[in-house]
Parts: sequence; structure tokens; C-alpha cells
Amino acid sequence: MKEQLHVVKVGGAVVEDPASLSALLSAFAALPGNKVLVHGGGRAATRLSEALGIESRMVSGRRITDDKTLEVVTMVYGGLVNKRIVAGLQALGVNALGLTGADLGYMLSDKRPVGEIDYGWVGDVRAVDISLLADLVGRGVVPVLAPLTHDGQGHLLNTNADTIASAAARALSERFDVRLTYCFEKAGVLADPGDEGSVIPRITRASYADLVAAGVVSGGMIPKLGNAFDALSAGVSQVQITRADALDASAGTVVTL
Amino acid sequence: MKEQLHVVKVGGAVVEDPASLSALLSAFAALPGNKVLVHGGGRAATRLSEALGIESRMVSGRRITDDKTLEVVTMVYGGLVNKRIVAGLQALGVNALGLTGADLGYMLSDKRPVGEIDYGWVGDVRAVDISLLADLVGRGVVPVLAPLTHDGQGHLLNTNADTIASAAARALSERFDVRLTYCFEKAGVLADPGDEGSVIPRITRASYADLVAAGVVSGGMIPKLGNAFDALSAGVSQVQITRADALDASAGTVVTL
Repeated sequence: MKEQLHVVKVGGAVVEDPASLSALLSAFAALPGNKVLVHGGGRAATRLSEALGIESRMVSGRRITDDKTLEVVTMVYGGLVNKRIVAGLQALGVNALGLTGADLGYMLSDKRPVGEIDYGWVGDVRAVDISLLADLVGRGVVPVLAPLTHDGQGHLLNTNADTIASAAARALSERFDVRLTYCFEKAGVLADPGDEGSVIPRITRASYADLVAAGVVSGGMIPKLGNAFDALSAGVSQVQITRADALDASAGTVVTL
Repeated sequence: MKEQLHVVKVGGAVVEDPASLSALLSAFAALPGNKVLVHGGGRAATRLSEALGIESRMVSGRRITDDKTLEVVTMVYGGLVNKRIVAGLQALGVNALGLTGADLGYMLSDKRPVGEIDYGWVGDVRAVDISLLADLVGRGVVPVLAPLTHDGQGHLLNTNADTIASAAARALSERFDVRLTYCFEKAGVLADPGDEGSVIPRITRASYADLVAAGVVSGGMIPKLGNAFDALSAGVSQVQITRADALDASAGTVVTL
């Protein structure tokens, strides 16, 4: 039987506020067994861009990443946010290791082709090599994954953190029984956006289609659930969408095939 | 007999210019066997500070690191410079892994006590744990060390890259036969600062004292040579000071006890 591994993805809003970051790190550190943390950092990137006079341009929630913006996200995701989390986890006795996709060459991606929109230095995941990563996890190391990949030709690429979490969870499911949790600021997928009590406890592929058709699921939740189903199809055992302070197995919305 | 390992330290001026960085990475990638790269990044940190309206204050070549400056060096050293090097090495077939001292908890330091000068978030190395690092090196991984450490209590600390190189080389000499090379913009320690042909081929502890007394060695070279002698005393086989494009064993100045 495979050992269990919990991949937890937290968004920028959680990791950029010192109080919520501290709560998240404590909850994450308390999780037993093998684990991986994946983080965002978009708000901090936007703030640094503003301070440097660089315009942040977003299309469908994706950041257009020109040369200057790539420098910003490399500094914020790979440096500021990632290393703060790593140092914070070390203080809690968690042997964290911060990684971009270039580190250990663990996640290779392709620069998104220029179509109607030129996203710039944005990467779509091509391949995940978990050999060294899985061994490190087996030795008690907790990888902390920044939303950056590389093209194998010397370029870093900006890659959505939900996608990184899904791709890493899928690849790691070769060696581990993987549970994937997406944390965000709400208690789960809500039937009524204004009512935190309206969490939908379970979404299947069939009910997902109905929810999209009815307009209950929209915006950023669509790619998030798309990533969830991709992960499940590829062997991940369970996907869960919940609040960062509710990491137990029954909280929030559980997504199944 | 121990396997050989080459620790190469490059300064900010080399890694911040695209052409000299590219030349350095090619020369470093061509080195046979086990290796570790340690980098600076001070000039880029100063530039980002300027762009953000943060004053850079230096005392004896050390950066006073207040809260805002710690953010800057975390972004520049841990993010921009480190990840560019890692992606560049991966493109050359080198399985690089970027690390601050917080990653894998490999280098712990103490915040420098406030004396006449309050250096802020500056760390002096307390302990180096090379167990995981040495195993990764044994599996072909090439650590790329940023000049940041941590205090084990959640704080990152700004630590001089020469010191990191010396401390890592000393610790790694438990498991490897370590050669340490400091690369900078000159061909070696020069008897006449204006004459690149005046490289002093060998400096011993005895001749060092004479060179300091005569004023030939001064400024930033004094702590660099101090780190070199510390490393040699702790078991490092050879320390060499040379230009980044001359990494062969006989180039520049060789420092011995």
C-alpha cells in the first residue's frame, strides 16, 4: 500500500497577511505525515509592481508576464513569499524546502503560444519529475512549491499555483496515496456566494456540469474545479476545497469523479 | 578516500551582468564532479532598494538590514539572482537546487548583537547541517546557495556570501575533499592593484600578516582571506582566489596555511 501524502495549496490572500499566514503555517505544521505546500502570491506581486511603476495586466485571472513582470514574480513568488513560508515552517519544526520548477528540474513547462493574447512568460506544465522530490519527502522533507516553472532553456515561467498543485499531486500519486486540498478565503464551494453556511459538501463531474450551467460555479472556481477533476482522473484520491483554517478531511467541499 | 567537491563563490558583479553570468555558468557547468555554487547579489539589491525609495546603508561593506531591506534581499538573493542561476544551470544540464539557509534548515545563524552598530537582520553562522545536502550532492544535485540564513525562529537573516561559502565548505569537508574558489573581478590578489599581471601566486598565514602590514591586502580582501584561512584550518584542502572565467586549479592566488 502506498504511503499517504497531503498536498495543500494556499492562495495569495492567505499567505500575504501575517496573521492568516501564521494560522495557516500552524495548521499545516500540525498535519501528520507526508505533506507538500503550494502557494500563490499574486497580490504581493501586484503591490511590488505598483511600487516599481510596472502595470499589472490580468486576462481571465492570469497575469500577462512581460520581462519586468517576470522579474517581479520571480522575486515575490520565488523569494519573498516562498522563503518566508520556509523559514516559518522551520521554526515550527517542519523541514521545509522551497522550490520553483527549475530547482531539481522538477517541473518543466512550455511558454504559452501567442494566440489572441500574448501572455508573455507564462508556462503550461509539460512534465513533472518527482524522483528526487519523492525521496526527499520520504526523508521527512516538506517541499514548498512556488508558482514558477522553467522551460529547460534557461527561462523561468509564471505558472498558476492551482495548476502546479494539481500537476504535482498527479505526479506524486505514482508513489503516494495523494489527497489534494485547495485552501481559499471561503468555507468551500458555496451554493449562495453570500452565505458561508451554504457549502456544497460534495461535487461530482455530473453535478459540476449542472452547477456551471446554473451559474452557481463561475469565475476562478471553474479552472480550480477543472484542475481538481484532472487530478482525480490522474489518480489523486481526494480533492477538497476549504478554508485555510479547516484542513481536516471532512471540511468544505469534497470533489470526486 | 573522500570524493572531491568544488565550492565556487561568485560575487554580485559577476552574476548580475547577463554576459558575465552566462560565461560563469558555462565555466561552472564544465567543471567535472561534485560542485556547489555560492552567489552574492549586492548591487541588484541596491538597485531594487533605490527603485523602491529605500536607502542602502553600508558599514565596512556590510548592509544594514532593516525590515524593508530584509524584504529586498530576500527577493533579490533568494528569488531573482538565485532562480536565474538555477534555471541557467538547468539549461546547461546541471541539476541545480537553489537554497537559502532556511531550506532544509541547512544553515542556522544568530542575529548579530547590537553593539556600536545595529546591523539589523544580519546573521552570523552558528551551525551547518549538511546531512541532506551531502546526500543530494552524491546524487548529482548541485546546490546553489543564496546569501541568506535563518535563526530557526522564523526570521531570515542577511549573511555575507563569502562567509556562507567558507562555512559550507568547512562543513562539507567532513564528507568530501573540498576545494574552495572565490571568484571576483580581478585575476587574483594583486601586489599592485593597477596591474592585473601582479597576481600573488601563493599566500600563507605568515605572508598574509606581512601583506596586511604593508598595506597590499586591504578592504574587502581582509575578510575574504580571513574566511579562507578559517576554511583551511577546518579541513578544506585548498582555497583559491581568481577571476570567474579562470576556474582551473592553478589560476589566480592559492591560499594555504
